[in-house]
Order: sequence, then structure tokens, then C-alpha cells
Amino acid sequence: MASTAAVPQANGSAHPVASLDSSLLTITHAETLKPLPAPGYAFGDVKTDHMLVMEYDPLSGWSAPEIKPYGPLPLDPSSNCLQYCSNVFEGMKAFLGPDGKLHLFRPDRNMQRLVVSAARMGLPTFDPDELLRCIKKLVAVEERWVPTEAGHSLYIRPTMIGTKPSIKVGPSNHAMLYALVLPVGPYFATASPTDAGVSLLAVGENVRSWPGGTGGFKMGLNYSPGFVPQQRAAKLGYDQVLWLLGDEQKVTEAGAMNFFAAIEREDGGILVVTPPLDGTILPGITRDSALALLRAHAAAPSSGILALPPTLALHVEERALGVPELARAGRAGRLLECFGTGTAVLVVAIERIGDVVDPTMQTIEDIEMKGGLKGLGPVGRALYHKLSAVKEGREQFDGWSVLCE
Amino acid sequence: MASTAAVPQANGSAHPVASLDSSLLTITHAETLKPLPAPGYAFGDVKTDHMLVMEYDPLSGWSAPEIKPYGPLPLDPSSNCLQYCSNVFEGMKAFLGPDGKLHLFRPDRNMQRLVVSAARMGLPTFDPDELLRCIKKLVAVEERWVPTEAGHSLYIRPTMIGTKPSIKVGPSNHAMLYALVLPVGPYFATASPTDAGVSLLAVGENVRSWPGGTGGFKMGLNYSPGFVPQQRAAKLGYDQVLWLLGDEQKVTEAGAMNFFAAIEREDGGILVVTPPLDGTILPGITRDSALALLRAHAAAPSSGILALPPTLALHVEERALGVPELARAGRAGRLLECFGTGTAVLVVAIERIGDVVDPTMQTIEDIEMKGGLKGLGPVGRALYHKLSAVKEGREQFDGWSVLCE
Repeated sequence: MASTAAVPQANGSAHPVASLDSSLLTITHAETLKPLPAPGYAFGDVKTDHMLVMEYDPLSGWSAPEIKPYGPLPLDPSSNCLQYCSNVFEGMKAFLGPDGKLHLFRPDRNMQRLVVSAARMGLPTFDPDELLRCIKKLVAVEERWVPTEAGHSLYIRPTMIGTKPSIKVGPSNHAMLYALVLPVGPYFATASPTDAGVSLLAVGENVRSWPGGTGGFKMGLNYSPGFVPQQRAAKLGYDQVLWLLGDEQKVTEAGAMNFFAAIEREDGGILVVTPPLDGTILPGITRDSALALLRAHAAAPSSGILALPPTLALHVEERALGVPELARAGRAGRLLECFGTGTAVLVVAIERIGDVVDPTMQTIEDIEMKGGLKGLGPVGRALYHKLSAVKEGREQFDGWSVLCE
Repeated sequence: MASTAAVPQANGSAHPVASLDSSLLTITHAETLKPLPAPGYAFGDVKTDHMLVMEYDPLSGWSAPEIKPYGPLPLDPSSNCLQYCSNVFEGMKAFLGPDGKLHLFRPDRNMQRLVVSAARMGLPTFDPDELLRCIKKLVAVEERWVPTEAGHSLYIRPTMIGTKPSIKVGPSNHAMLYALVLPVGPYFATASPTDAGVSLLAVGENVRSWPGGTGGFKMGLNYSPGFVPQQRAAKLGYDQVLWLLGDEQKVTEAGAMNFFAAIEREDGGILVVTPPLDGTILPGITRDSALALLRAHAAAPSSGILALPPTLALHVEERALGVPELARAGRAGRLLECFGTGTAVLVVAIERIGDVVDPTMQTIEDIEMKGGLKGLGPVGRALYHKLSAVKEGREQFDGWSVLCE
């Protein structure tokens, strides 16, 4: 790809500036490599030896991408990202397959979503394929960090921040785009992802997102307003918050995951329902993948796509789902299972949902799964195993597993 | 004040850690001072020679505050502030009074609001009086930067960012608290703050804040989602966005300002109305000051607190205000004036409001002020002059003007 092009930029300039060009990538190896951590580390704290960094300047465009030793970023204290939070990010994972090669899971989706997030933030955009080429090289450089322990994986965090050094309220025409790599342990400290789950407190007094807001984009600013409500939920004995919206107590997200419920129908079939992409929830890639697998199974139950009885009729719906409906299904013994999906967790069981029936928060009634189910039920478990197999390069589905080379 | 104390910290630790202590402040002067800029610079780009910085560590508490040469902050790329936007800030101004001394305007309010914002963000908190002592020293160090040109002033930007080096979603128990000082020109490039104003496009499809959201806190994350809608408004010929909420098209904020309207009543009096502090708008200090002055004048019209005819009956209301009400008042020739308030702008006239009467955005009808008023009307002008006089230390009101020493 040409190194300069009159790409229409988010800053509106028609000036031809350098495009993001992976062929210009340089690699500077760290002089000393860190020792690999002993398994058991938490999610998010351990960083590898290198990072990928490139910068955008409105006059010159994208700088040559660099893989260089992990270290602090020197940021002007007036930077747009620190003052007004023009930060967007992605989450991906790399796995070592049985072929001995590194695999990524639908990475084109992450790249496209990052471009969409950047544009919504008024940040400069870029060619997503070029960024993916750089990220693949970073992962290859960090291959020794890919964990082999169960429940551990290599997490990739592309991040883009507005670096315009001005406190003027407005879009940043300077940006830094970087990617970190982290070996990660289980997101939740549960016994096993399939045999244990998390609890959620349904919260309506704080709202994560709303119509016309930014809940449908992967922006850092969607997360920090939930920190204190999350601490409050933890004090009441719940792992995460189930975010609600409006008087109908519509479910938006569960912690930082998309939410699914499986409800037994009168005819013996199973309704799997998840809230729709109405702009208030993240268009999760694991969510999309789960829906695709569920629909493929529903269309051909004996195909074996999911490890579910071929006689079981699945009905998949993307539609608004309120806590009252979940509570009614729970009371009727028809709430088979609930689970969250996301890159960090893959599929995690939701074992109970605290329904605040008295708004003074004195009275919380738990919505429980049929039979007091712990861990994933049949639907979540089938998705977990299938998604794990594809992510880890042991199986293929619709070209989702992509070689990192 | 003692340098260590078992202050209950936002991180929940009871471990006694160092409090923020202004008596430990050190000053390292820049070796070379920057030349002062020629007047005419924009708002937000020019920084002075020094900055105030202190850091919070969960084990040791607050570091000794430092005034040191302005320069980049080395931030871990996984920092909570860059990943999840745990950033809060304040805006203040310093003025050189006729007494030759530096004055601040109600700085205790800014300090208290910063603590409230930090707590809502799950960041460590601090003694606001101690921070104010440090900021006063920074302003004193930068006294040569106080502009003397009309419309120019010295702006202070306290900022607090979460620096926990982890991508785990959760509150940051590491933080950096810093303050920048900037000589600023007029926020809007209008001829004169009293003789010219801005136009607003009323926007309901993008929503700045929501009940249960963070619109009532001074967080950086409330601002960047407005960048692209603001660009869209500019393309349609409007300076700023008038942010609406809900089917009633309730006004929340105007750009980054609080909104006031003055409407002629049937009895000849003037109704001055501004939206209430219901959690969806910033509790602006200029807003609060304007309301206090308006109410003091309404209670004693012949006191001369505001330069308005003593025969004019002012009626001040904090209540929901929708665009339909503004449009009706405009059509009836009873919309006397609208203005925005904020630290950056003080009081700025709103000359017209684009009301999107067809949601395809093809049809916009302007709501205009009575008689096609340009610049501030009598109420806004009286507030502008009174607030300027108190801010600049030429007059006093209720102890608002505070010496910077």
C-alpha cells in the first residue's frame, strides 16, 4: 500500500498525509526480557516485553509503526485524552493451536469496530487491515508469553487516545494508537468456567448507557462510571452489576459482558434471548459469534454444531428483555440459565440475579436458575466448548479462526 | 496539618497513609522561561512554565506536592485513565485586581466539586483546603502570565487521573493530581462578550447525559461524546449544541455551559429560568453565582446589586425547560434573551437556537430573541458586569473574591 494517500481524515483535512502503513513497521527488541510469571496471576496486571505504537499528526499523518520495549508514554498533561477522555479500545485474544501456530479469533471485527469507535470520537481513522498486520507481528514477537495453563490466554489490547495538547473542548486531531499484550488468568476467580459462575445485582439507579449515548461503541468512558456502583454491588455480595435502563428495567449489559438468558418454553423448546443492538449495548464479537452458532444449530439441530440434543428446539431472539420477565421465569421454574459473553470471559454462568424489589435497597430478592443450577447450563456450556475450540484453533467455523502470520 | 492520618480512603484501606499536605510543597523553577505570547491566542493552547503535580499510591498515600517545569507526564500505557477514563477536572480563573493582588473566584467550590467528582469516580480523595493552598502557590509562581488584555485571563485546570497500571475493569487506587495554568483568550471568537453571542443547534438524537448518568459531575468523559455532534452542528452553521433530553426536549446544557432564558411575563415582569440540578447538568459555579445574584436582586430590586431598573420585577426559577416552551415564547415575541454561563465564558449571549422541526434534519427553524437581539440583553449584561467586577476583585459579593495568597 502506498505510504501517502489523500485519505479523507476525521479532522476534515484534504491535505494528503501518510496512511497507516504496516510495511514501515520497525522492531526494537528489549535488551532484557522479563521472566515469565508463575500461573495464578490476575487478569490485567502483567504486561509483556514490547508494545506497538504509532502516532497521528494532522500535518504528516500516521508515523511508521514501531514495536518497541514496553514503557511509559510521555503525554502532555493538557492532552485531549486526559482532559476529555477521547479514548477507544479493543480486546482480543491469541491462542497457540494444536498446529503449533498462533491463532486470532475474528480479528477483522475488532479492527472494524476500532475504526467505528475512533470515528465516533472524532479521532483520525486508519486502514484496519494495516493495523491488523502490525498487531500480528507484535503477537509473533511476544509468542513466548502465550500461556499454556488452563484458563489462561494471551490478551491483546489495542488502544487509541487523543493527544492534542490543548484544553479546548473539541476533537483531537493528534492521536496515539498502541497495542499492549498481556498474559491473563481467568477474569473471574471461579473454580472453573463451566462449573462455577458469577452473581449479578440488577441496578437501575445508575445507568450504563442510554438512547443517543455511546453505549454501542467501545469507548473507555463507558466503563469508569460503573466502578462505584460495582463496588456497592460487591458490598452487597454480588460479583457484578446487571445494568438496567428505564422503567421497564430493560437489561443492557452485565458488568462488561453481553447478557443472554435461556428460558424454557411451554412447548418444551428453549428460548435463548439477548438484548438487541439498539445503541445502548456493545456489539460484542463473542455475542455475535454466540448468536451465529445458536442460529446455525437452531436451523440444523442434528448438524452437531453445538453439543446439544438434536431433539432440543432452540429459538433465538434478539429483543428487549426486562428484569420482570426474568423474575417471572425464575418464579415459574422456567429460567434454565443465564450467561454473559465477552472476549475476556468467553462465556460465564450467571448463577443468580439480585432484584432490588425495594428501592431503598433494603430488600433484594434473588432470581435463581431452575434447580439452583451452578455453573453453565447446557446452552452456555455448548457455546463455551464450541467457541473455545474455534478460538484455540482446534476447530474452524465460518473462517473465524485466523492464523497470526 | 499532620502529614499522616488514617483518613478513610476511596480504596477502602484503613492503612494510615500520607494525606495531601501543602506544607510539603517543593518548587523547582524552570531554567528557561517561555516568552509571553502576543495577545490573540486561542483558548486552551498556551501553557505556562510550571505545573503542580502530586501522586497517590495506595501504600504510601499522597506524595509531597511539587511545582516543577511544565512537561510530559510519563504514563503507563495500561493506566486506568487511558483505558477506562477515570479522569476528573476543574476550571478556575485568576485575575489581577486593582489592588495589584491576584484574586480567585469561589475557589472552595471548585475544590469541593473536585473531591465529589473523584469520589464518584472511585479515585482517592483529599483535603480540598490543602489542594487550594498548593494551587495558590502555583498561580503566584506564574503571576507574570496573568494577561492584562480585555477578554483575556489566567485559567487554572486542576486535573485528576487514575494511574493504576492494569487493564482490569475497576477503580484506580493509584492517581495523579495535577494543575495546569493557561493564559486564555476569549472562548468564543465573538466581537465582544457583551455585543455578540453564539448560536446553538438543539440536538436530541445525541444525548449528553441521562438520569442515573454522570452529567452532574465534572468528568472528562462527559465531553468527548459531544465532539462529533458539535462538528455536525458547526457544518449546519451553529456554534454549539443545545443538549436535549427526552420526548419533552428538556434542555440540559448548552455546549459546555449552563443555560438560562429570560422570558417576558404577562404582568411585565421577567422570568429567568434555568434547568434544575437533577443530576443531568453540571452544578456550575457561575450558574450558582448567577442565580444568587438574580435572587438577591429580585429580593431587593433597588439594592443596585445588578444594574437593572429597580422597577423591573425579576422572577427566578430552577425548573425543567423544554425547547417547545422556548419556541412558543420566541413566536410570541416574549423570549427576551438566552445566555450560557461557565468559568471559561463567564456569561455569553445565545442569539438563536436552531430547532430541528423535521427529524431528518432537513428543516430547522430558528428560535430568535425579541427584536432580533444581538449580544447580551439586560439580564445577561447585568450579570456579566457584576460577575466580572467580583471576579476581577473590583467588587466583593458574599466573600466570593478570594485573595490568592
